[in-house]
Amino acid sequence: MKGTMRAAVKTKPAFGSIELKTTDVPRIAPDEVLVKVKISSICGTDMHIYEWDAWSQTRIKTPLIQGHEWAGEVVEVGPACTWAKVGDYVSGEGHIACGHCYQCRTGNAHVCANVTIIGIDRPGAFAEYLAVPEKNLIKNDSDLPLEYATIQDPFGNAVYTVFNGDVPARDVAIFGLGPIGLMAVALCRHIGAKRIFAVGHRNEYRLKLGKKLGADRIIKSSEEDPVEVILGETDGQGVDEVLEMSGSEEALAQAIKVLKPAGGIHLLGIFPKPIKVDVNGLITKGGSMYGIHGRRMYEDWYRMQGLFKSGLNLMPVVTHKFPLDDIADAMELMRSGDCGKVALLP
Amino acid sequence: MKGTMRAAVKTKPAFGSIELKTTDVPRIAPDEVLVKVKISSICGTDMHIYEWDAWSQTRIKTPLIQGHEWAGEVVEVGPACTWAKVGDYVSGEGHIACGHCYQCRTGNAHVCANVTIIGIDRPGAFAEYLAVPEKNLIKNDSDLPLEYATIQDPFGNAVYTVFNGDVPARDVAIFGLGPIGLMAVALCRHIGAKRIFAVGHRNEYRLKLGKKLGADRIIKSSEEDPVEVILGETDGQGVDEVLEMSGSEEALAQAIKVLKPAGGIHLLGIFPKPIKVDVNGLITKGGSMYGIHGRRMYEDWYRMQGLFKSGLNLMPVVTHKFPLDDIADAMELMRSGDCGKVALLP
Amino acid sequence: MKGTMRAAVKTKPAFGSIELKTTDVPRIAPDEVLVKVKISSICGTDMHIYEWDAWSQTRIKTPLIQGHEWAGEVVEVGPACTWAKVGDYVSGEGHIACGHCYQCRTGNAHVCANVTIIGIDRPGAFAEYLAVPEKNLIKNDSDLPLEYATIQDPFGNAVYTVFNGDVPARDVAIFGLGPIGLMAVALCRHIGAKRIFAVGHRNEYRLKLGKKLGADRIIKSSEEDPVEVILGETDGQGVDEVLEMSGSEEALAQAIKVLKPAGGIHLLGIFPKPIKVDVNGLITKGGSMYGIHGRRMYEDWYRMQGLFKSGLNLMPVVTHKFPLDDIADAMELMRSGDCGKVALLP
Amino acid sequence: MKGTMRAAVKTKPAFGSIELKTTDVPRIAPDEVLVKVKISSICGTDMHIYEWDAWSQTRIKTPLIQGHEWAGEVVEVGPACTWAKVGDYVSGEGHIACGHCYQCRTGNAHVCANVTIIGIDRPGAFAEYLAVPEKNLIKNDSDLPLEYATIQDPFGNAVYTVFNGDVPARDVAIFGLGPIGLMAVALCRHIGAKRIFAVGHRNEYRLKLGKKLGADRIIKSSEEDPVEVILGETDGQGVDEVLEMSGSEEALAQAIKVLKPAGGIHLLGIFPKPIKVDVNGLITKGGSMYGIHGRRMYEDWYRMQGLFKSGLNLMPVVTHKFPLDDIADAMELMRSGDCGKVALLP
Repeated sequence: MKGTMRAAVKTKPAFGSIELKTTDVPRIAPDEVLVKVKISSICGTDMHIYEWDAWSQTRIKTPLIQGHEWAGEVVEVGPACTWAKVGDYVSGEGHIACGHCYQCRTGNAHVCANVTIIGIDRPGAFAEYLAVPEKNLIKNDSDLPLEYATIQDPFGNAVYTVFNGDVPARDVAIFGLGPIGLMAVALCRHIGAKRIFAVGHRNEYRLKLGKKLGADRIIKSSEEDPVEVILGETDGQGVDEVLEMSGSEEALAQAIKVLKPAGGIHLLGIFPKPIKVDVNGLITKGGSMYGIHGRRMYEDWYRMQGLFKSGLNLMPVVTHKFPLDDIADAMELMRSGDCGKVALLP
Repeated sequence: MKGTMRAAVKTKPAFGSIELKTTDVPRIAPDEVLVKVKISSICGTDMHIYEWDAWSQTRIKTPLIQGHEWAGEVVEVGPACTWAKVGDYVSGEGHIACGHCYQCRTGNAHVCANVTIIGIDRPGAFAEYLAVPEKNLIKNDSDLPLEYATIQDPFGNAVYTVFNGDVPARDVAIFGLGPIGLMAVALCRHIGAKRIFAVGHRNEYRLKLGKKLGADRIIKSSEEDPVEVILGETDGQGVDEVLEMSGSEEALAQAIKVLKPAGGIHLLGIFPKPIKVDVNGLITKGGSMYGIHGRRMYEDWYRMQGLFKSGLNLMPVVTHKFPLDDIADAMELMRSGDCGKVALLP
Repeated sequence: MKGTMRAAVKTKPAFGSIELKTTDVPRIAPDEVLVKVKISSICGTDMHIYEWDAWSQTRIKTPLIQGHEWAGEVVEVGPACTWAKVGDYVSGEGHIACGHCYQCRTGNAHVCANVTIIGIDRPGAFAEYLAVPEKNLIKNDSDLPLEYATIQDPFGNAVYTVFNGDVPARDVAIFGLGPIGLMAVALCRHIGAKRIFAVGHRNEYRLKLGKKLGADRIIKSSEEDPVEVILGETDGQGVDEVLEMSGSEEALAQAIKVLKPAGGIHLLGIFPKPIKVDVNGLITKGGSMYGIHGRRMYEDWYRMQGLFKSGLNLMPVVTHKFPLDDIADAMELMRSGDCGKVALLP
Repeated sequence: MKGTMRAAVKTKPAFGSIELKTTDVPRIAPDEVLVKVKISSICGTDMHIYEWDAWSQTRIKTPLIQGHEWAGEVVEVGPACTWAKVGDYVSGEGHIACGHCYQCRTGNAHVCANVTIIGIDRPGAFAEYLAVPEKNLIKNDSDLPLEYATIQDPFGNAVYTVFNGDVPARDVAIFGLGPIGLMAVALCRHIGAKRIFAVGHRNEYRLKLGKKLGADRIIKSSEEDPVEVILGETDGQGVDEVLEMSGSEEALAQAIKVLKPAGGIHLLGIFPKPIKVDVNGLITKGGSMYGIHGRRMYEDWYRMQGLFKSGLNLMPVVTHKFPLDDIADAMELMRSGDCGKVALLP
């Protein structure tokens, strides 16, 4: 499709610097489709780029259209595509896996050796149109709300983390109540967790949201000690599963202490640099730590479809919607932390 | 404890023949406890004995106090016991595993080579008092309703069957709506199944109960074809997991037909004799069939505790309560099928 | 590549009818490569087509170039290919999976809903040249003998079956000593099985080969009872894993009898029609039956590479080589059963 | 059994201080047996006690008969025992699990909440006689060499570690070549590992032994960089499984670097205090770290029996035997490191 479109462009290598621009509609490769974006949402990664942190400085090349969480309608289909059709209501995986490395060919495409990422390595979804490889698409149920359709990429992180453990009927601690941590709370409640301990640091907005989404016990770690609370309320036994979604060294230390022997710690939070870990504490408990990266392609996407169908309510997580034109305001709201997931409408 | 008690005794090798008698309170071995029974419930196995079927004739020796589903209070503790205390509110596993065979020592005590069963091989729970090995006890939460406490043995079958598969967010078909099938419906709903297809043959009472407990689609197999319905409502894909709880040859044939490729069939229903199976249908789908026997000792008991804590509602399953003295009436109600689980109060 | 080649063609819908012909070299699609075949081998499926059995009559359209076990050199690469290069020494998976069905996208491409098979649904490898999708290729180590390279498709069946169980240090029974059963014997020995019971019916050639490849106990089921032998030599305990590679109703009945409680039966043999199964025998043991179809794509191919590297000796399995021109003789040898794997050299 | 015996006694809380003494033969509880010790062997833990390190000072009470690796003959059976018989040739698990905590009842007795350890919390095997609970016994095959029978406790550590991963046909790195690391080398070779990289620091004796036991590549980390070697010899891909048996911070850092994406690090080595870990390195690879403690009761013991039966050769690991009277010399040899496993003959 030829023509121009509006897009939010990170214009230069500096803090902020995100501007609405008119650009060409992207050209698609033979195995790609063009999607008219109906909604998108802001990821923590987008915040890193907005704030132009150390990671962004080494990875991102400006100008860049960001955004890898989205839903929309297929408007053009490349000639080598095999199943997508114009009019399909779709979302998609942000990681484009190569398909031929050892990981891709053995069920681990989520850690593909040659991955490229939409909105990071190529133009993203904060725009009117988006080019995506057909193999990255998931067809949404026609009645799936846009709010759910756009958050599948981060919700997929939560799904991978939660289902990496064995949660139904068992005690769970969730460290970190960002949007993914909040979705994990709702999910653990939905699938029958015994007790959910949700640990946030000091953000009242999100602590309250955690309670609303089903946590049995909200712990504000700046005011009370999660180890004391959790061991106290579990007869000193601790929890079966820990979901580490904070990226905090202190939280991981606490996670090892509250872990029940033979339990599992599922690591989604990113730790910017090496940290001190009581590895022996883990070993003598016979516990395990699992690194969680991305989403299972595409097991986790089908799992999400089933969860939505089964009545999972994530609506409270999507707290704000902005017109795409107001993306800078949306970014600033995200920085404040007084929100859950923030969506953009082109 | 010395003295006498009332007990329902199968008095002779014939249909019915269950009578209230006064007998000695059982003597306990050093590693056993004596329990004052507060509630018990009737298992399908108890019906086989009542009806004196072929299996009963070869296995059961009369006179016998039946009953292996129960809850009560510890009133006496043998000298070799290590943790049980007088006053404990307990239930217990009906299978007494030897502890030293290969299966027992490798995590599979549920298929112990030397098992003896309470209420079948030794006096059971349809009485005022019951002797049980301490190792078979589970301590109930003090606020656990008696109705839940007594049905843990059969609910444990449902838990083993359901958790042998991967149910959250996935499509499930349950063949057979006896009390265990009904509990499986409630459990699958509780842990977030996508869609639940519940298949009964013609018992209206139980079909209605299945609907009430959360089945998305009730199928009355005497009137509509489960294969047609399930494939029709799943775009021809079938279901991820089948729970076979009917023991019907026809149901197993249907199960193979509605199984999604790479799916699992979990077999709890008992098939009295060898049956025709389309093994190739299973193989070409890359599907699996898992034999489920008893309950995981004691993973499934802890799982049950967690499920009750997480809010699982099984109350509608326990439809009737009788005084122990009216056990014959209770047995006749069970025979009619117009009931869920039937409890007895000594 | 334009030109003509020699190929073994099933010319008409009847027994035998395989003839060497001169045909056009196949044209490749953009995502395919052209392979110069160095070696190929005859599968049981090729025998079914040769004998023109009931299955062949409904599935196969003549004329057809058969053959899906092969190795060769890439001589032409389609423009949409991403990694294959002219000169690569390759073999390949015979099942062409669609890549976009539920199974393909959830790690189960081996049971793809839209599979097409080389040498069955499209021209195969009993020829000088073969067209194959790049995604189906595996690059062989340069020092891998041609004999090993060509048998990877059937060896992959053995690998999937053996690794579906837990074989190292455990007792295994293998029913059926065709080429795949023989490879399974060698593999179980190589990875440290405790004892291997190998059951053949009456083919002396293959019973001897089973012994040579490492079976601890060869059982000729036409002369002695496998159940008696296996239970007798395992103190009545039976075996941990059964590999069913015979497709015999009687063998499956024996398999259930010799299975240790909580063990697994892995079903690779094809059963032409529904058979009587003692399902209850399986259930009361808490045993499982797993349908094995094809090979895990491509976990099992990498597993094979590792096994060859680790020193697995399968050379005795490839007992005969024929020039492609003598394919009819090779087919007749296969029919006689006095052979292991039979290879063809174009 | 009444009478006296010779025993090696740690007499006082200080370095060394191990002396041959005459003491009473231990009394057995009703559920215990008395074993006449035929052989015992020295564990790293025994070295810690010998050297009276920080851990020993807080845990050990003198006088103590050490030793938890042993084999012998049952000479007396307590009245509550159910299967052991005088004359049985036995070894046994050193960890006495309580049997009733959550871990014990859910398949994780190896991390029992109330464990007591033979030779640490109660009299051990460096003596003529030993009292052991019947439940801790394993009956050895009558033809099992004493050398193998006595090393099952530490070999069980190796078995748990190796089988916690997926080793056959895959690349493995083993960090640490103490006796357990050496046994792991032999085991990985026996079950068909693709390539084994064995990393020792500088002990020539053990590096040579590692080579002899089947390592493909011995790496002396004081002279060459394991990361460079392993990545160099695996095309930069790294290994599927890492067995960490050194307890070295540097080794764990290297382990994360050489781990293939989606691979596993199995942690047996003890880290005396918290260490720096590149947790992010693990997460972005989607890798996992598993704490290994003790041995699976009793899966790993049966696994060992099967491995011995299948022909595993561990003889080169047991490099020295001493009369029990010369235990001080044996301890000094262990301190030097110029040995594999050291056995004692009472």
